[in-house]
Amino acid sequence: MIELLRANALTRLADRDPNATPGFDGDKAAGQEALAAGVSHLGNLQERLFAASTAGERRRVLLVLQGMDSAGKGGIVRHVVGSVDPQGVHLATFKKPTEKELSHHFLWRIERELPPVGRIGVFDRSHYEDVLIGRVRELAPAAEIEQRYDDIVEFERRLVRTGISVVKVMLHISPDEQKARLTERLERPDKHWKYTTNDIAERMLWDDYERAYELAIQRTSTDEAPWHVVPGNRKWYARLAVQALLTDALERIDPQWPSATYDVDEQKERLAAT
Amino acid sequence: MIELLRANALTRLADRDPNATPGFDGDKAAGQEALAAGVSHLGNLQERLFAASTAGERRRVLLVLQGMDSAGKGGIVRHVVGSVDPQGVHLATFKKPTEKELSHHFLWRIERELPPVGRIGVFDRSHYEDVLIGRVRELAPAAEIEQRYDDIVEFERRLVRTGISVVKVMLHISPDEQKARLTERLERPDKHWKYTTNDIAERMLWDDYERAYELAIQRTSTDEAPWHVVPGNRKWYARLAVQALLTDALERIDPQWPSATYDVDEQKERLAAT
Repeated sequence: MIELLRANALTRLADRDPNATPGFDGDKAAGQEALAAGVSHLGNLQERLFAASTAGERRRVLLVLQGMDSAGKGGIVRHVVGSVDPQGVHLATFKKPTEKELSHHFLWRIERELPPVGRIGVFDRSHYEDVLIGRVRELAPAAEIEQRYDDIVEFERRLVRTGISVVKVMLHISPDEQKARLTERLERPDKHWKYTTNDIAERMLWDDYERAYELAIQRTSTDEAPWHVVPGNRKWYARLAVQALLTDALERIDPQWPSATYDVDEQKERLAAT
Repeated sequence: MIELLRANALTRLADRDPNATPGFDGDKAAGQEALAAGVSHLGNLQERLFAASTAGERRRVLLVLQGMDSAGKGGIVRHVVGSVDPQGVHLATFKKPTEKELSHHFLWRIERELPPVGRIGVFDRSHYEDVLIGRVRELAPAAEIEQRYDDIVEFERRLVRTGISVVKVMLHISPDEQKARLTERLERPDKHWKYTTNDIAERMLWDDYERAYELAIQRTSTDEAPWHVVPGNRKWYARLAVQALLTDALERIDPQWPSATYDVDEQKERLAAT
């Protein structure tokens, strides 16, 4: 499945069908079953990672989630990340930068939210906003936006070199699907708070965002930290795919339970005597 | 159930049975069923809290978890807190203070980890360490330890006044139960990493810790922020009790879905036209 989602410098979003379920033949029910079946394996890998970090393991995983409004980032956090022990997760949500953040390089606030050892880091939006909305809304001079792609590549190369597996996911939905999801938010009073009038303004810029995503994916998909374009129209598939990506990243680390740094039998005796 | 767990200035730990299941008549299976049955209500309350915070609701909840080694704090985080959307939780684990933290007042690092609006804050250990291990290990002059109780009462009073419901939980296990749990850690290679030789040294000070807990509970159980002594020998009961405490705190806030700040019909029309 994973290989089918990977992107590179030649990836075109028009070639990726948001309705597809690459590498998975089953239907929704089968997909949900597969997701549930993967929960304990992922949880076990995470606990082993945490345990190993107490014995010096410094490798870890960072999941970067991007996508248009309503693409399903929140659902991934709730249903995939949420299945893991909260103590093993470092979640950061990046909103519109504050004045203080803007007074620094755009990677400053990102650096501060990198996961500590033993944790799965999750970015709900990320440094990519600075080449997405940054580009579309012209929030910085064109030359600076250009520079940012290189800055990102260098930054992520360092992360990977120091043991952070960077798993980049674009949740790819179609304009029609977004329309349906925004419509649902307007139809359900318990979803009204998720809708803002700005959503339509952003939606009108769909093509510009699509182009900005494509450019970002092309320019920052490296061998060390490739993008994955995850079809997002079927929420169940996107969740299954991201679970597979996280599981794969942790399996590559293959963290081990650390051996005791003390004499187990001696401690048993001492404990028994208390 | 909740009232039976509450503590006050006269509470004595010797009167609280760590094996008891106050307010719950069922067995383990019934307890686990009740826990599972409460998940969606708690999750719904949390989502409503988050939604309401986008419309100005500033009230929130802070769960303070304390207990001896192996009392089950981690299990509460995993099984009770872990059932809630991670985006709605702010979890902070307080370990041995760093040099930098020690250069500040003991509440400095606590203040920095208070939950933002819309979130359930969870403290795995807390400012109480400064009157527990602080007292037992004499990490500060006696007069300063005395001052800290007052500091804590004032601090929590401010939290409550500014809308943070402080839910304080001591997970209360017996020395025998701790022995069994530590023994299990020594018997299972996948648990060896959870054990340190310091655990026995701390265990030898059980009576001192018990006294320090009792004092802390007596001196900082206020009407605004009472302690709850949750019997911890049966993990399933402790989890059910903490779920009940969190649910109760959120029900008292009774957060509401905010009404739309825009004209819903107008937005529907505009969206349909895109």
